[in-house]
Amino acid sequence: MRKNTMDTVLRVRVRHVPGQLARLAQAVADQAALMGDIRTVGMQEEFTTRDVTVETDDETHLKKVIAAVNALAGIDVLSITDRVFECHRGGKIESKSRVSLKHLADLRYVYTPGVARVALAIKQDPDQAFDYTSIGNSVGIFTNGTRVLGLGDIGPLASLPVMEGKAVLYDQFAGISATPILVNSTDPEEFIETVMRVAPSFGGIHLEDIRIPDCFRIENELKRRLNKPVMHDDQHGTATVALSAVINACRLTGTKLHDAHVGQIGLGAAGSAIARLVMAFGVRQVSVADRSTEAVASLVSAGASASDLATVMRDCDIVIAATGRKGLITPEMVRKGQVIFALSNPDAEIDPDTALKAGAAFASDGRSINNALAFPGLFKGALLARSRSITQEMMVVAAETIAAKAAADELVPHPLKADVHQAVTHAVRTKALAQGLERTARPI
Amino acid sequence: MRKNTMDTVLRVRVRHVPGQLARLAQAVADQAALMGDIRTVGMQEEFTTRDVTVETDDETHLKKVIAAVNALAGIDVLSITDRVFECHRGGKIESKSRVSLKHLADLRYVYTPGVARVALAIKQDPDQAFDYTSIGNSVGIFTNGTRVLGLGDIGPLASLPVMEGKAVLYDQFAGISATPILVNSTDPEEFIETVMRVAPSFGGIHLEDIRIPDCFRIENELKRRLNKPVMHDDQHGTATVALSAVINACRLTGTKLHDAHVGQIGLGAAGSAIARLVMAFGVRQVSVADRSTEAVASLVSAGASASDLATVMRDCDIVIAATGRKGLITPEMVRKGQVIFALSNPDAEIDPDTALKAGAAFASDGRSINNALAFPGLFKGALLARSRSITQEMMVVAAETIAAKAAADELVPHPLKADVHQAVTHAVRTKALAQGLERTARPI
Repeated sequence: MRKNTMDTVLRVRVRHVPGQLARLAQAVADQAALMGDIRTVGMQEEFTTRDVTVETDDETHLKKVIAAVNALAGIDVLSITDRVFECHRGGKIESKSRVSLKHLADLRYVYTPGVARVALAIKQDPDQAFDYTSIGNSVGIFTNGTRVLGLGDIGPLASLPVMEGKAVLYDQFAGISATPILVNSTDPEEFIETVMRVAPSFGGIHLEDIRIPDCFRIENELKRRLNKPVMHDDQHGTATVALSAVINACRLTGTKLHDAHVGQIGLGAAGSAIARLVMAFGVRQVSVADRSTEAVASLVSAGASASDLATVMRDCDIVIAATGRKGLITPEMVRKGQVIFALSNPDAEIDPDTALKAGAAFASDGRSINNALAFPGLFKGALLARSRSITQEMMVVAAETIAAKAAADELVPHPLKADVHQAVTHAVRTKALAQGLERTARPI
Repeated sequence: MRKNTMDTVLRVRVRHVPGQLARLAQAVADQAALMGDIRTVGMQEEFTTRDVTVETDDETHLKKVIAAVNALAGIDVLSITDRVFECHRGGKIESKSRVSLKHLADLRYVYTPGVARVALAIKQDPDQAFDYTSIGNSVGIFTNGTRVLGLGDIGPLASLPVMEGKAVLYDQFAGISATPILVNSTDPEEFIETVMRVAPSFGGIHLEDIRIPDCFRIENELKRRLNKPVMHDDQHGTATVALSAVINACRLTGTKLHDAHVGQIGLGAAGSAIARLVMAFGVRQVSVADRSTEAVASLVSAGASASDLATVMRDCDIVIAATGRKGLITPEMVRKGQVIFALSNPDAEIDPDTALKAGAAFASDGRSINNALAFPGLFKGALLARSRSITQEMMVVAAETIAAKAAADELVPHPLKADVHQAVTHAVRTKALAQGLERTARPI
């Protein structure tokens, strides 16, 4: 599986001669490109028109493929369509009305004069906003674009397609109304201030793609000041799914997680949250390693033991690496029977196959950790409970639920399975209510 | 027509006896309440169940109606439903996906890894955000709730139903994706700063229900600093529709608007904008009156003449009042043949019937000025042109278009007529392109 590719639809006109499709497929294969779907879109007397999806590394590679196809006798590329860009045209989300305006009376109910009565009811009792506005089911996705995917600091506007992608997942997986809010500031205090000022607009605050250490300060401060769920997905969404994967890796290898010695290498946004969540799950022995003494100290104060790469690899039953450093773990470091998660994208600390050859009982890379499994249900459960926060305990039940929903041979379930998100929602809501987290009567 | 009423659906069980409906209607009439729709929802052997909509002044009035209905032999009220609150349950808007996720490949196009290519394309050329994100068709509706409808300063959260109402109108009338953003600050500088920080999220900035004089400072500063359309609807949406109404009042009365002497009484958000727009339309003689010497001075510097109530009433052919002062204009002040718009809600400066009896050629109150006629097309036209602003010239063509779309006997057209909004959009877009307002290459 290639890591960064582009899918392009070539519309080709193919003259009716036996073996044309085989020649086309061979030409694509000769360029080391992959074939996707083939769809017939027109049939003439002498020609067939087909849409052929090809997967290439980049534009240059695509040009070579097109040239190779055009060089074939009786086959012409009529047009090309970039599938990804076509999916994005006009944006991936929109704000839609939930009511219909057909008659004058509808306007009177939905707008003036009727709306004034609803406004006054909320003025008198702010909690009514949860019943009579969209905030009971809404999340604002806040970012300043300082750490987007593997792209780094690309700024707020360029990160909008990523935020819209999150909003699509919120809608499809949990029916949550999510809105990207791009914050044009790299200063964490300004970021906090901005979120505080517009926070009444949303039922929950999802933080996304904010660089470290700013993301820690921003999340902690907003959690302290806001009477509604706040979660930085790069930390806790990732940690929740990572814990699910660890639970199932233990199931698959017969490792007892509670009694295991877990090592976390790399304490960035994801790594710190994973180590904390593993402890919250009940693992007593957690060792952590990072170049930042501050990050290590923070985890030690939470109950972890300070360690280093070599010691973790030597002593730990389960190793989770999230360092961003390709090839950090050499085959020689792998202990026989170890469970290894090398999560850095796009290049892992150790290739899973290499780790397995070196004796690991189980090995996986970051592609197994799709945080789309966690955040929709975490926020939906919190919103349904009208919870004032998303706690570690809620994340643990989410992780357990995700793990339980995997098939016998799966590490984690497929994110397109609707029942996973429903189950997470239910578990998180139940836990929030059990924890007595219903929001207090404060307007924001 | 009552000004503030509530519509309630009474579900009644009516025993089969001739004349029951007549008795029910009479009982409602005896309480001075109005009847709306009647719908049969069930038919049993001895009873019919019907939903009867009644219009009352308030809760107390409703209770009297219910008691009167229950007192009738063979008629029982089973349940009551407040139509307005039911319309608002769960909120009136939601953010929805425009793409569908069915297969793993869809996730790869919409989210990672595909989305990274779109993000990078926007990083390299920010204008691509107009093609590949939602901002090309999006408006943020910003308010701090300091002057909402006739309710005054009810704060941001309580104003959300009003903002959602505007978003509903944006969706239905112009297909614009609009999102309410509640700003939790009454300080204009903080408001400006907050909008500046989140402005990249939206293609246009709609300001709503902000008190004077803050609304002037906020709008002017944001217009100056942002490279996208900014409009305070309470000023310019209202002014645009008011100008439409004035144009058609002149048509109906045979008054030549360009040559007329127009008087504007009251220079609040709406009044100031109306006076400016009337001048932009080409009326040479505009007199203004207000208790605020600052407001008058501002209009005088824009070309108006300073005046006072009595003088305006004596000299002007067309008088527009927007003072919030009920009964300010007495019948004695009305000049024969005058065109009078007394726009204050809910109580006009002079009742239109009174004005007509006193000799006015035409009189109307604020109910004729529905700014839902203007803002959807103004923003849609500006967004389609990728205009960096909404100018007075664009508002003038919008007003002319709205006026032209009214039927022969209408002052302004019905806002539910889709072709009005399409025509406004087209006129505004054409004007923006003619004015060369396409946004410059600045990211925000």
